[in-house]
Amino acid sequence: MDAHQQLLADVFDRACPSRDALEHVTGRWGILAMMALTEGTFRFNALRRRVDGISEKMLSQTLQALERDGFVHREAQPVIPPKVEYSLTPLGEQTAEKLFALVRFVEERLPEIMSARRAYDEVKG
Amino acid sequence: MDAHQQLLADVFDRACPSRDALEHVTGRWGILAMMALTEGTFRFNALRRRVDGISEKMLSQTLQALERDGFVHREAQPVIPPKVEYSLTPLGEQTAEKLFALVRFVEERLPEIMSARRAYDEVKG
Repeated sequence: MDAHQQLLADVFDRACPSRDALEHVTGRWGILAMMALTEGTFRFNALRRRVDGISEKMLSQTLQALERDGFVHREAQPVIPPKVEYSLTPLGEQTAEKLFALVRFVEERLPEIMSARRAYDEVKG
Repeated sequence: MDAHQQLLADVFDRACPSRDALEHVTGRWGILAMMALTEGTFRFNALRRRVDGISEKMLSQTLQALERDGFVHREAQPVIPPKVEYSLTPLGEQTAEKLFALVRFVEERLPEIMSARRAYDEVKG
C-alpha cells in the first residue's frame, strides 16, 4: 500500500478521527468562521456579525468544535464584564491557507462552473 | 478593495453561486465522491461500493450536483444493458488536488489534533 492508497483508506474510514476534524473545517459555518478569523482576533459578537446569518448557538458550537480540535484559540480575560477573544492557532492558520486555496480556486473558476450549469440545464431542464 | 478583501466578500455572500459549488465539493459525500473519482472512472454501483455508507439516493444527488457544476463527467453508452460511467473533468481534477492538499494536511496533523482534544477534554470534561 503506497502513501496515496493509505491516505484514501483513512479518508474513507468513517471511524477515523480525521474525518470529523475535516468536517469541522469544511462545514458550512466552519469554513466561514475559519475565513473570518484569518482577518484577526474577534470577540464573540463581532465574529457573529462577520459571519452573517449564523445563529448564536451555531457559532458557539462551531467555535467549540474548532477550539477542541486545536484550530482556534479561545482567550478569556478575567475582567468585568468578561472579555473572550477568538483567534486562529498556528495549526488553524495553516489549515485556513489550504481552505483558502480551495475557495480561491472555486471562485476563479466560477465562470466555467456557471457555463457548465447552463449547458446541463439546457439538456436536462 | 484588494483581491483578498474581494474574495472574502464573495465567500461571505450567501447569494454568490460559488457558495453552493464549494458546498458540493466540501460536503460529506461530495469530498468522498471526488476523492474516489481521482482513482479513475467508475460505474454507479462500483462507486457506491467505494464510497462506503452512501445511499443510492445520496450518491445520485451528489453526482448530479457535481456533474451540473462541471466537476464530474457522466458518460452514458447506448448499449443494452445501459452502461453509465463517471469520471472527473479537468476542472474536477484540479479541484480534487486542492481538496487533497487540505485532506492530506489534516491527516498529517492528526496527532496534534488528537492531543488538542485530550487537553480540551481534561479542562472542560
